[in-house]
Amino acid sequence: MTRFVDVALRWSDMDAYGHVNNVQFLRLLEDARVAAFAEWFGQDRTMLETGVLVARHEIEYLAPLTFRHAPVRISLWPTAISGASFELGYEVRDPEGVGDRLYARAETSLVAYDFATASPRRLTESERARLRELAGEPVAFRWRRR
Amino acid sequence: MTRFVDVALRWSDMDAYGHVNNVQFLRLLEDARVAAFAEWFGQDRTMLETGVLVARHEIEYLAPLTFRHAPVRISLWPTAISGASFELGYEVRDPEGVGDRLYARAETSLVAYDFATASPRRLTESERARLRELAGEPVAFRWRRR
Amino acid sequence: MTRFVDVALRWSDMDAYGHVNNVQFLRLLEDARVAAFAEWFGQDRTMLETGVLVARHEIEYLAPLTFRHAPVRISLWPTAISGASFELGYEVRDPEGVGDRLYARAETSLVAYDFATASPRRLTESERARLRELAGEPVAFRWRRR
Amino acid sequence: MTRFVDVALRWSDMDAYGHVNNVQFLRLLEDARVAAFAEWFGQDRTMLETGVLVARHEIEYLAPLTFRHAPVRISLWPTAISGASFELGYEVRDPEGVGDRLYARAETSLVAYDFATASPRRLTESERARLRELAGEPVAFRWRRR
Repeated sequence: MTRFVDVALRWSDMDAYGHVNNVQFLRLLEDARVAAFAEWFGQDRTMLETGVLVARHEIEYLAPLTFRHAPVRISLWPTAISGASFELGYEVRDPEGVGDRLYARAETSLVAYDFATASPRRLTESERARLRELAGEPVAFRWRRR
Repeated sequence: MTRFVDVALRWSDMDAYGHVNNVQFLRLLEDARVAAFAEWFGQDRTMLETGVLVARHEIEYLAPLTFRHAPVRISLWPTAISGASFELGYEVRDPEGVGDRLYARAETSLVAYDFATASPRRLTESERARLRELAGEPVAFRWRRR
Repeated sequence: MTRFVDVALRWSDMDAYGHVNNVQFLRLLEDARVAAFAEWFGQDRTMLETGVLVARHEIEYLAPLTFRHAPVRISLWPTAISGASFELGYEVRDPEGVGDRLYARAETSLVAYDFATASPRRLTESERARLRELAGEPVAFRWRRR
Repeated sequence: MTRFVDVALRWSDMDAYGHVNNVQFLRLLEDARVAAFAEWFGQDRTMLETGVLVARHEIEYLAPLTFRHAPVRISLWPTAISGASFELGYEVRDPEGVGDRLYARAETSLVAYDFATASPRRLTESERARLRELAGEPVAFRWRRR
């Protein structure tokens, strides 16, 4: 099962300061999620088609990233699982052979959602089983004040 | 002094689900910051030209937002001030006369930075004075787990 | 009837060269279209809800644009109307009082489309009447080679 | 020498209609250019670092594209070369094994530019030689009216 996804940068991810813009990091996380979910939940498709809503993000930026042709490697893993939602942790790093920098760590709260009925739903048992199988440590944020 | 900024939505802020995409909310916050900083620190320009780095974001999504011609009103205010960094709180709402929905609350940590020397710097006394004058309550996040 | 729309720039429209990125100009044109169509076709809503497809763009860049708090003024007008499609011309300029620079001229071909049946459709008589009322000169492109 | 580049789609390239947005096609072309130029002009770096300006785009959309994990294959080749500028043609297709759809054809005019002196420059002899070596047919646009 996929525990990381290599996401290609785009030149346009850089802002006027010449670094990958802080908001674009969330965009990269989105793509990592889309790729990972296709593999994690691919067979029954509930997660991608029925959907999840993003309820919360938290992200810490650790090093500046400039555009390069090598992708970033985004690790992602469930850090908490409840009946109708789960949390994903992430680390954005260089892939092997490119470097060993950690650029960002982040966490997203996702709420299971039924787009057909426009209402929250429970995670299915198979979704929960898959998430448990992949689960890992909470993200060690450093800069929260409270 | 500006305590809120009305930011125009773009049709392209919506994603394939037909809602303003969660990542685009951070983009809207960026624009609110750029507009507010121009007024808060406009005279000596240090903040915008010398710069600040985004070190951290935290955001909670409270209601779905769809594109409309009315802008969103983004309140923003310093929630903590130290020698070389500060925190900004935000609320994303409807403007008066449009509605009274709260779409998101968020917080950003900003580190004062000197782009000329590519190194962190101290906030100037006038920057700190301005931030203190505008300071308000911490953001009351509801969904942090720890 | 609206013959121009003032579109707010975003700081993120700039790329690593510090100018509004050439691709973002097309994004600004999109927003001008959305705003103008709401007024031009607002009553029966066919154009916005049933939809049109973009079949073609052509754009010439005439002057560099950097982010500023003032919007750009985008003039737009039909340059050709047929049974199932039309062309829109645009000019992207400074608004009055800000300057008198012409940044870009462009043209878009739009095909009337019925999203419900996923097939092309004819323009309605009222759509054609409105377009004729607003119609103007073709765009005077300078840099086409052939 | 690279005559095509496979560019990864992002989920966010789709708009509220559920298709890769027409503006994002230009974004994909940008990334194809950045990747191809790194290889075409990589050694002396003049093209990427000293720079080129986009003076013009023309694009025709031929088939709707929805997000998928497979990239798009973007062919690109010089279609005209002069002393201080050149034209690039493009086709956006499925890669081998994925399909054989042609989604868009486009052309970009690029002006050689010296960012250090903020002025147009001549193409160097080695740049022109490389472009000539890669040159191909003009783009066969179908929907130009004049």
